[in-house]
Parts: sequence; C-alpha cells; structure tokens
Amino acid sequence: MHIKEQLKGAQQDVEATLNKYFDGLLNTEQRIKSATHYAVLNGGKRLRPYLVYATGRMMGANKEDLDVLAAAIECIHSYSLVHDDLPAMDDDDLRRGRPTCHILYGEAHAILAGDALQTMAFELIANHQFKVSAQQQLKMIALLSKASGIQGMVGGQALDISATDKQVSVTQLEQIHQLKTGALLNCAISLGALCSPTCDEHSLKQLTLFGHAIGLAFQVQDDILDVEGDTQTLGKPQGSDVAANKATYPALLGMTAAKQKAQSLLTQAHDALAMLKHDTSQLKSLADYIVEREY
Amino acid sequence: MHIKEQLKGAQQDVEATLNKYFDGLLNTEQRIKSATHYAVLNGGKRLRPYLVYATGRMMGANKEDLDVLAAAIECIHSYSLVHDDLPAMDDDDLRRGRPTCHILYGEAHAILAGDALQTMAFELIANHQFKVSAQQQLKMIALLSKASGIQGMVGGQALDISATDKQVSVTQLEQIHQLKTGALLNCAISLGALCSPTCDEHSLKQLTLFGHAIGLAFQVQDDILDVEGDTQTLGKPQGSDVAANKATYPALLGMTAAKQKAQSLLTQAHDALAMLKHDTSQLKSLADYIVEREY
Repeated sequence: MHIKEQLKGAQQDVEATLNKYFDGLLNTEQRIKSATHYAVLNGGKRLRPYLVYATGRMMGANKEDLDVLAAAIECIHSYSLVHDDLPAMDDDDLRRGRPTCHILYGEAHAILAGDALQTMAFELIANHQFKVSAQQQLKMIALLSKASGIQGMVGGQALDISATDKQVSVTQLEQIHQLKTGALLNCAISLGALCSPTCDEHSLKQLTLFGHAIGLAFQVQDDILDVEGDTQTLGKPQGSDVAANKATYPALLGMTAAKQKAQSLLTQAHDALAMLKHDTSQLKSLADYIVEREY
Repeated sequence: MHIKEQLKGAQQDVEATLNKYFDGLLNTEQRIKSATHYAVLNGGKRLRPYLVYATGRMMGANKEDLDVLAAAIECIHSYSLVHDDLPAMDDDDLRRGRPTCHILYGEAHAILAGDALQTMAFELIANHQFKVSAQQQLKMIALLSKASGIQGMVGGQALDISATDKQVSVTQLEQIHQLKTGALLNCAISLGALCSPTCDEHSLKQLTLFGHAIGLAFQVQDDILDVEGDTQTLGKPQGSDVAANKATYPALLGMTAAKQKAQSLLTQAHDALAMLKHDTSQLKSLADYIVEREY
C-alpha cells in the first residue's frame, strides 16, 4: 500500500477515536465543545498518529491501544497549534486553508480549547484499559508529559521565541527543533513501541535514533517548503517563516546544503531501522515521504 | 493547631515539592522556567493542597505521595489562574497583590507557562512511585484530568463566559461554580482519599458530599467578599466581579440570603463528615475557615 493511503488509514482511525470521545460529552457547553472539536478535527496530516500506528503494528501491539495513543498524541499536537496560532504567539489567521480556532471562536475559547485538548490527551490514556501493564501505561503518560512540557515541546516553543530576530547557529536551530517538534514525533514512535508486547531496550534505542533523524528531516523539509512551496498546496502563506524573521535551514546553510542535510538525515533514519529485526518497511516509506512531501 | 498554621504547613510542603521539580530542570530555557515558577510559586492560599493533605492524613496516606498529589493539583489550579488572567479572558493585571504572569513576562510566555504547568501536573503523578497500586495511580490521573478538562474546570470557564452579561438563575450559577471551582476542590479531596490504604466507597461518597458543599460555600463566600471585602486584604480589586457583569450570589439572592446559604452549606459539610469513622477535625476546621475567611 502506498504511504499516502496508509496515512489516510491512520487519519480515519484517529478521527474515529476522537469523534467517539466527543460523542460521549453529553452535558458540555456547546461552544467550547465545538471549538475543541474544530481544533483537533482539523484536516491535519496525522503524522504523529501514523507513527504510533506504524511502530505499534510493526511490533504486534493491540489496535485499540494504538487508537488511544494516536488520539492522545494528536490532542497534544493540536493544542500546541491552537495556542501557537494565537495573536500573542504567531498570530496566524489560516491553518491548512481554514480559519484558525481563535479567528472562528475568539481568543478566549481558543485558549480554553487548547487547554481542554491537553487534558484530553492524558484523560484518554488514563481511562483506557491497555493490554500491557498499568506500570507500562504510567510510563507512557510520563513519556508523553515529558515530551510535551517544559523539557520538551513547550521548552522548544520558548527557545524559538527567544531566538526570533536573533542570529542563531545551526546547533541552536537544531536544539529548538529537537524540542519543538522532534520530542513529540519521537514520543509517538516510543508510545507505539511501549504498548507492544515485543518492546525491548534495543528496539527503543534504534527507534529513538530513527525518530531523531526523521524529526529533524521533517523540519528541514518544512523550511525548504516555506521557500519553494506554494501557498495553496501548503495551506498557509508561503514565506511566512522568513517574514516572521525565524531562523531556517536554507537561510543558515543555503538551499543546496539544506537539501543535502535532508538527504543525509534520511540515510541516518534508514540506517537506524536496518538494525531492527522487525519489518520496518512502513517506517521506511514514512521517512522517504517526509523528505519528499510537497506540503 | 489552628487552621491557619495548618494551611501554612501545607503551603510549605507543597512549595518545597514544586521547588524540587524546578531545581531538577537543568537545561531549560531560562525565561519560560522563570515564568512557570512565578506562576505556581505565587503566594496562594494552597487550599487544594491542604485538602489533599488533610484528607490523606486522616486516612493514613503516605506523606511523599500526598506531596506529589498536592503539587500536581496546585499546578492545575495555577495554570487556570494564569490563563484566566490573560487579556483575552478576564484581563487582570493583579493577583494576590502581585503583577499577573502576562504583565511580568508577556502574553506568549504566560500562555506557555500555563501550558507547562498543566503538563507538569500529570508528569508529577506519572513519575512518582506511590505506595498504592499502579492501577490506583491511573485512577488518580483519570480523576484529575476529568476534573480539569472540558467536563470540569475548563467546561465551567466556558459556561462562565457564556453567562457573562446575561441573566442567569441560581441553578445555572451553581452549575458554573460546581464545574469551574467545585470539580477541582472535590478532586483534591478524592485524590487524598485515593492514595490512602483505608479508602473505600462509603468514605469516597461522604467526602464527595463534603467537597460539593464546601466548594459551593467557597464560591458564595468569594462573592460576598467581592462586595464586602477590601482591596488590600483581598489582593485584588474589590467589586471586580460586579464590575465585570458576572452573576454572583449576593446579586441573585440578596446579601442576607447569600450569607444564609453559606451557613446552610457549612451545615451540609459538617453532616457529611459526621458519617465518617475517621477523625474529621481538620476537614471540619477547614470548612469553618472557608465560610469565615476575609480573603
């Protein structure tokens, strides 16, 4: 099956799980329910859910367990987008070709919807009866919280803000991305592994190397697309990073070296997978897709 | 020991636990670490931590377990204050006599600090090795997430926003408060019970009745103080609820009936405690304090 069809499958599965949660909210104030639903059922690529599914499937995990983890990590990702888009942060009106949450529901509800989505992530994991042990389940929550919080995604956001309008080195840029997007991408992979019966230290280590490489490759390609993509395909204004004075790989390295960096990271990702005894074809295709995608 | 000294003890214990967490953050961007620390080490009354400690102590819980739960619930409460104070929400410049987080650190960092504090709550619980089972630990996370999220505190915030500038009934006002503040107060009590070896269904039920009564009593007294308190003792402008066109008990019932309601809720709280076999003196003093406090 082609990677795009597989991504589509993950999209459908994670959206079904998320919709089921919202269907269960019977006495919730309508506007916050609607804003939260809009914020997470947003037509995203669902890359993080796909990483949960692909890793978990490869290692024999239970499908319902993966559904919950995929939904949880997408809640965290979506909350971060809603808060990032706020006027006080990136002030974006458009995401994936649709009005951002605060444009449609107002700032107060966008703040609250983001808050609710973060809570929902932990609620989903804590309430599900996994096939693995309760101890392992706690490990997943610990991992997700570390990857999302001040030592992960939120810390990366703060680093990103402090670097805006400043000259940063490639090392600093890498640290920003590793926290801001890498931590959660890597967490998606580890969650898929942690809920699998065949999870062991060696696999976790190789998967972390793989996650590190594709996380960075994803960001390098994002920066390349910000220069070379077109607004309609991207679903957001082309050139917006440059306009916002954000450091990017093409700006720091030049376009040719940025593209070489993406390729070299792809090789690192392939190498990390080659050390696993599992059928890594889905993760390999995903890595290729990350570097070859046009949006 | 007088209730104020006991509250002081809970303050010191929860702040020591929170400070230990921040001391462990070695490579975190300085400004977000500082904003998050400011947001949670904020001179608060620590009522929720006290409820965790008082309930847990009464039921024989382990002290370190209570420290973690007290810190976690205070992270949730503090995050909600930081986000509530934002210009897009209540637009408050002052809290407990100090500049609010966004006044000192800017809106972007206040949003991120709130986000980080929410994550920190779940991280603290997931990473601690409790004396009770991992299953019970998951139950605590499930409870805290439900009380904080769209079915609890965040849902209550949304109800509150939709009720502003509108005529609401006493029943509607009660529903708002039950979600907005009651859910988390009740959760604090249940968390203290859930990590105790003597926790049973009967105790949980009576404690929930107690929590429901003091949660509402707390809000009724807050509304009374908004009219009768003075700005310096309150640490926030007296009359701010009325100025913001928020529904309050004195406005809906009249001051005399509002005070009677507070007393009647206090009686309910005492009655709920009387059905427990434990030494409920600390919780009883706390209920008295809630209705008698001046700030």
